[in-house]
Amino acid sequence: MGGGMALLFAEKGISVSLQDPSEEVMDALVAEAKKLDIGDRVQKYTDYKSLCASLGSPKVFVFSLPHGSVGDTVLGGLLPFLKKGDIIIDAGNEHWENTERRQGKCTTKGIRYVGMGVSGGYQAARRGPSMCPGADDESLDIVMPLLRKAAAKDSKGNPCVGKAGTGGSGHYVKMIHNGIEHGMMCAISEAWAIMHKGLGMNEDEIGDVFAKWNSAGELRGTFLIDIGANICRTKDSKTGERVVDTVEDKVVQDLTGEEGTGIWSNAEAVNNHVPAPTLTVAHYLRIASAYRADRLHVKKSMGGAFPPQKLAVEDKRDFLEQLRQATYTACLAAYVQGINTIDHGNRANMWNVDFREVLQIWRAGCIIQADYIADMLQPVFDRCAAKGDVNLLFEEEVARDLRKGQSALRTVVVEAPPTRPNRGSAPLTQLPDLPTSFYEAELDYFGKHMYDKKGDDPAGLPTEGKHHYEWKPA
Amino acid sequence: MGGGMALLFAEKGISVSLQDPSEEVMDALVAEAKKLDIGDRVQKYTDYKSLCASLGSPKVFVFSLPHGSVGDTVLGGLLPFLKKGDIIIDAGNEHWENTERRQGKCTTKGIRYVGMGVSGGYQAARRGPSMCPGADDESLDIVMPLLRKAAAKDSKGNPCVGKAGTGGSGHYVKMIHNGIEHGMMCAISEAWAIMHKGLGMNEDEIGDVFAKWNSAGELRGTFLIDIGANICRTKDSKTGERVVDTVEDKVVQDLTGEEGTGIWSNAEAVNNHVPAPTLTVAHYLRIASAYRADRLHVKKSMGGAFPPQKLAVEDKRDFLEQLRQATYTACLAAYVQGINTIDHGNRANMWNVDFREVLQIWRAGCIIQADYIADMLQPVFDRCAAKGDVNLLFEEEVARDLRKGQSALRTVVVEAPPTRPNRGSAPLTQLPDLPTSFYEAELDYFGKHMYDKKGDDPAGLPTEGKHHYEWKPA
Repeated sequence: MGGGMALLFAEKGISVSLQDPSEEVMDALVAEAKKLDIGDRVQKYTDYKSLCASLGSPKVFVFSLPHGSVGDTVLGGLLPFLKKGDIIIDAGNEHWENTERRQGKCTTKGIRYVGMGVSGGYQAARRGPSMCPGADDESLDIVMPLLRKAAAKDSKGNPCVGKAGTGGSGHYVKMIHNGIEHGMMCAISEAWAIMHKGLGMNEDEIGDVFAKWNSAGELRGTFLIDIGANICRTKDSKTGERVVDTVEDKVVQDLTGEEGTGIWSNAEAVNNHVPAPTLTVAHYLRIASAYRADRLHVKKSMGGAFPPQKLAVEDKRDFLEQLRQATYTACLAAYVQGINTIDHGNRANMWNVDFREVLQIWRAGCIIQADYIADMLQPVFDRCAAKGDVNLLFEEEVARDLRKGQSALRTVVVEAPPTRPNRGSAPLTQLPDLPTSFYEAELDYFGKHMYDKKGDDPAGLPTEGKHHYEWKPA
Repeated sequence: MGGGMALLFAEKGISVSLQDPSEEVMDALVAEAKKLDIGDRVQKYTDYKSLCASLGSPKVFVFSLPHGSVGDTVLGGLLPFLKKGDIIIDAGNEHWENTERRQGKCTTKGIRYVGMGVSGGYQAARRGPSMCPGADDESLDIVMPLLRKAAAKDSKGNPCVGKAGTGGSGHYVKMIHNGIEHGMMCAISEAWAIMHKGLGMNEDEIGDVFAKWNSAGELRGTFLIDIGANICRTKDSKTGERVVDTVEDKVVQDLTGEEGTGIWSNAEAVNNHVPAPTLTVAHYLRIASAYRADRLHVKKSMGGAFPPQKLAVEDKRDFLEQLRQATYTACLAAYVQGINTIDHGNRANMWNVDFREVLQIWRAGCIIQADYIADMLQPVFDRCAAKGDVNLLFEEEVARDLRKGQSALRTVVVEAPPTRPNRGSAPLTQLPDLPTSFYEAELDYFGKHMYDKKGDDPAGLPTEGKHHYEWKPA
């Protein structure tokens, strides 16, 4: 993501000094910048001293680093060259407690440390991501003009960036964004599996359904539905194969450690007494899928286990409408549970999170973009802003839709359990057949997550895949 | 629990020196000991110096303390009076990482620190609990004769205590025991609600069903089913009221902080990539129930919400059999997920957990006692002992029963969603009507947990109740 953001900032007229352990990576970026005719704004530096000397005052750094100790190492290396007023924008998926620790270290030296979640995936990082910065108000005021230039724009042209709150709130809100993302992706993957395996629809037909869902009604403008339609329709430009058919059904990102947010968001809910079953069931589905070797073993021990069964649906058109409403209700539940988790973190840490800003950040460019939900939540957050805390279940718009969706949710639970191995009947999470090839395709679509092709890994190990498909050419 | 264990040890012929911040508490125990004619074996001490002077060599201490910093304070106070070879048995529900930290501190002074989970509730603490000690092998060899005297005995007369493993494994296994306990209690409470609200059965009828389930078949000898039968049948000896009818439906122990294990066990699963949906859904049900004020608010915002509905069941006898099988399958799922979590902790921390010992610890005296499951797991653990690690889903006995139970689970999920607000349809966890009055009664039955009576707390705050009923006279 760091390279994409560097080119994005340069395109917006900002001089960018690169620093990366790999000179090869920097050379490629410099070459790309030249091709784009912005080569004069992108320079590489191989050590911190010359990097810092190249910058004006205040110096502004954007970190795009793996979570954990790497940020400490880089900060430690930079510190000797920093002066009061210099600014670090930590744009990785850092754990919010690491962010606050570094903020504490920097504040004694007068250095501004902004913890900023960035969402949208690798293509958005290049074209305009959703940005969620948290820090003291003064620091945010200073960086906001820069961020507004680069951020995604919503349908009205407003940038999708805002002051999330103080302290580590920017990374906290982004962490929960990812928890919501997984809750939604789980529900949508199950809808895909119900259509694919339960109703026997082919991928083109499912793509048409997703496209229709995305065009109007409660799932209008839902990014994960939109790319779901594209995924169903995508054929490999070389082989002609339907790409999603080739994707193995294991989602390994929690186990490889590249991503912490899926784990942390659920640990927050568990540790802080926030009921978040939609998010945590999604987490367990993901990790159960990653242990493919175990699932193959279980298939044997269960004597073939439980293949998905065709559904005997009387009125397919009506059932698909129920499925749409159920999918929406699950997505809304993910939002409710995620926002309740943020509300708890906000009250416990006194971050002054402004949910109107959060909503603007999520309006476009991010993975959980859902236009209908955003429009519905706008007046809710306008009302809630005065009192500061939020429980969406108390708000009439949300309660109305959840109430309305119950019947559809129940219909789908009743009709479709054989294709939905991770719900209701809890011990089934380790069944061989999971709807996670579609899930893995979604992650690869926006996140360049890499996947195994079917047959790549007969042992079924939870290791990162070797393939990426450029589903949507940049 | 500490007082009960002190009297238990004294009854077994051991001289006990008491130390507690409250002299009143100690005086009451001394008086009770005199009544039992064991007064010469129970003395009180008001400071650590005289306490330590009263003990032989090696000195043996049994901690029964709240989790967290209290144990550090007490250990710090005792240390000046300890010598090489002295033994501390930490019998509280301590977090295993605190246990290992203290083991590290003690080992440099040659002091033996045993982290021991104790299960069975307040009455078992007095009569013979299930004990789960973890430490180095030599320390365990020294304390085992003492513990065997006090432990619960299984149906063959064997004590329910064993060497769980090294390090903090004793507290880890007990933590997961509690996670399994909650998974089972959630399933049994839902079965109660389905019978009570869905089938319109009265408490006597439900008590008969639980008693029958407990007497034979897959739920044979299941402690939580057995006490469930007693709870259904219990009338207040003074008022004649059915006690469970008076219990408010909020379970607050995670929020008041008295109990950490319910939270920690789920955090372990989330953080360590172990799918444990049965355990975590139970956790979320519990905490959703605790926020009764929120549920009352949701009832308004949803316009009355979703009252439980009568089930239109064709063959009640057949449905009850399906319900029994579904309840068993959920209990078995809780066991599987809990043991998989222990297996992960064991491999990560190299504790050499012996699951045969764990099974013996759980044979009687503890809350998750389940005779059929224990008999089924005996040959499984005998086979697994050789290789050290365990995934119960791979073992034919367990796979067979899970496979067999799927159909019943699905029937219950399909028939009974209106009474089962916490499953399947994820956003429902905050609904007003939850099956948690029975859950709360179970906790009070064995744990003296204290409950609110209906009407005690119109505001619905997550605070500890004021009532305990002595369901089973000591």
